[in-house]
Amino acid sequence: MIITKATAIANSNTALVKYWGKQDEQLIIPMNNSISLTVDSLSTITTVDFSESYDEDLFILNKKIQSDTPKKRVQKHLDIIRNIANVELNANVVSENNFPTAAGLASSASGFAALTAAASSALGLNMNPKELSMLSRRGSGSSCRSFYSGFVEWIKSDDNNESYAIQLADENWFDIRDLVIVFKKHNRKYTTREAMKISKKTSPLYDARLEIVEDNLVKVRKAIKERDFSLLGQTAEADCLLMHSIALTSNPSQLFWTAETLGMIKFVQELREGGLESYYTIDTGTNMHILTKPEFSDEICAILRKIPYITNIIECKPGPGVQIIKDDLF
Amino acid sequence: MIITKATAIANSNTALVKYWGKQDEQLIIPMNNSISLTVDSLSTITTVDFSESYDEDLFILNKKIQSDTPKKRVQKHLDIIRNIANVELNANVVSENNFPTAAGLASSASGFAALTAAASSALGLNMNPKELSMLSRRGSGSSCRSFYSGFVEWIKSDDNNESYAIQLADENWFDIRDLVIVFKKHNRKYTTREAMKISKKTSPLYDARLEIVEDNLVKVRKAIKERDFSLLGQTAEADCLLMHSIALTSNPSQLFWTAETLGMIKFVQELREGGLESYYTIDTGTNMHILTKPEFSDEICAILRKIPYITNIIECKPGPGVQIIKDDLF
Repeated sequence: MIITKATAIANSNTALVKYWGKQDEQLIIPMNNSISLTVDSLSTITTVDFSESYDEDLFILNKKIQSDTPKKRVQKHLDIIRNIANVELNANVVSENNFPTAAGLASSASGFAALTAAASSALGLNMNPKELSMLSRRGSGSSCRSFYSGFVEWIKSDDNNESYAIQLADENWFDIRDLVIVFKKHNRKYTTREAMKISKKTSPLYDARLEIVEDNLVKVRKAIKERDFSLLGQTAEADCLLMHSIALTSNPSQLFWTAETLGMIKFVQELREGGLESYYTIDTGTNMHILTKPEFSDEICAILRKIPYITNIIECKPGPGVQIIKDDLF
Repeated sequence: MIITKATAIANSNTALVKYWGKQDEQLIIPMNNSISLTVDSLSTITTVDFSESYDEDLFILNKKIQSDTPKKRVQKHLDIIRNIANVELNANVVSENNFPTAAGLASSASGFAALTAAASSALGLNMNPKELSMLSRRGSGSSCRSFYSGFVEWIKSDDNNESYAIQLADENWFDIRDLVIVFKKHNRKYTTREAMKISKKTSPLYDARLEIVEDNLVKVRKAIKERDFSLLGQTAEADCLLMHSIALTSNPSQLFWTAETLGMIKFVQELREGGLESYYTIDTGTNMHILTKPEFSDEICAILRKIPYITNIIECKPGPGVQIIKDDLF
């Protein structure tokens, strides 16, 4: 009997220039390059255990057995990896997030990065980060950016074998803070995957966005290279509003904001006016990220803790890429 | 001594395809055609009295003497009219809105339409609605659409003498309801005029919008012609979100929504899902318009009256154009 087991830990990443729409829905090749920051405090730890003993695949997330879509997405991804390794073993996948799932915190990014790393390691596939990012991309697009520490760009390409993540700068290059604000209420009508599909298909602004994103990519690369926090934050905030404008003008219109989001947008504007330079970025959940300088973080967190509709504030720094933390190969 | 006095009443109009940015800031020639509904319940009544007895222009709005910007805008407009009439008399302008000023209800539209009609009548200028709309446009762009009843299009043109309003259908052609929702709180960081100027200058989506607006114009004209409420409402709502997307992606970003706006967006979506077909449109204030069919209006108003953050609901029908209601010529 062969037992192949591995555990990986992956961090989430926060998009500074957003991924919004695919040129290939099956292979998950994006319409535009995106840039993110891998963060140190939002992580998923996943153990994958392939064994002849399992009658079927099992996926346990945060101590709950998963079925339907979450399980199917994991199975589909395992199938790709099993196919590469040429094995047909079922797997037991045990995964834990240290943050709320499906609340717009990119749990699929850290989740699929950890799954890809653990499963490929468990099956003895000796892949480098570039290969892993390419493989992980097919489970969840943005997960490919979590294989590297610090600032990472996902290259679009027209070719399945050329769409992968590259590191722009490691976690020690440019110290910023990403304060992740978790709101009490959160609801979403569409998954991120559905939302971007609807946007690409229906927003009359979709193509115009692609050109503007090219400018944003140039600005964010420059901001990282020159450690220019203002340029980084301004561009990330503008890129976020650009993405949400595309979502708003989709049919049906997709509005991911709540009263709390509006409150925090105003709050960040006030922080800036008060000299605590900060910018926001919002994904498809109803929580948001405040990007700020390390020296302002404590003061901002102290104010945030007094806001009643905020459940949790997670202070993140630039963090490491995926790591295999245990290998049990028999 | 010459005394020249006239009173005019003008209705506000609700944009179905929005005006957002000027190709000529001085002459107020818009970047795109716009279409509106002249409504019957939001009106301004203005008396203009030119006389040698006045040492200076006086502008009294809602029983308050105005100074600074509001007064200067009125004076500048009176100067244009005085210049045409070749008179140099000062004027006493007394104006009353039957709705809250500067709350995003288009008070400048009905205000400048009434001012233009009263002042030109007082000075004995015998102008037709086309000429009046062209003149009024220079005081407040959207006011030019209030000279006709029902559904009205403002033509852009490159020529000062060719940018005016035309009637698409009168107030009896197509009966719809515009429920104007006035919220308790309202604040604006920028005037509409400033906001559209910033958008035109800075939104990277501005040009893309202009192409999309052409489609919206075709759809709304068709919807009016065929009395197709669904097409009218869907296009008006999409056009509103398009305009707000341009505002959001401007620098600085312009967000005109409050928690109440988000609540009402959700409310209108629920009305639709519940079979009470309705659409929303939002201008730059923090109130909004619900467009619905006459048969749904009472039921929707009854629900709206129970919502605590709503101060007032004004039910509007397609209404008449500007009317001179009194002429005192000595």
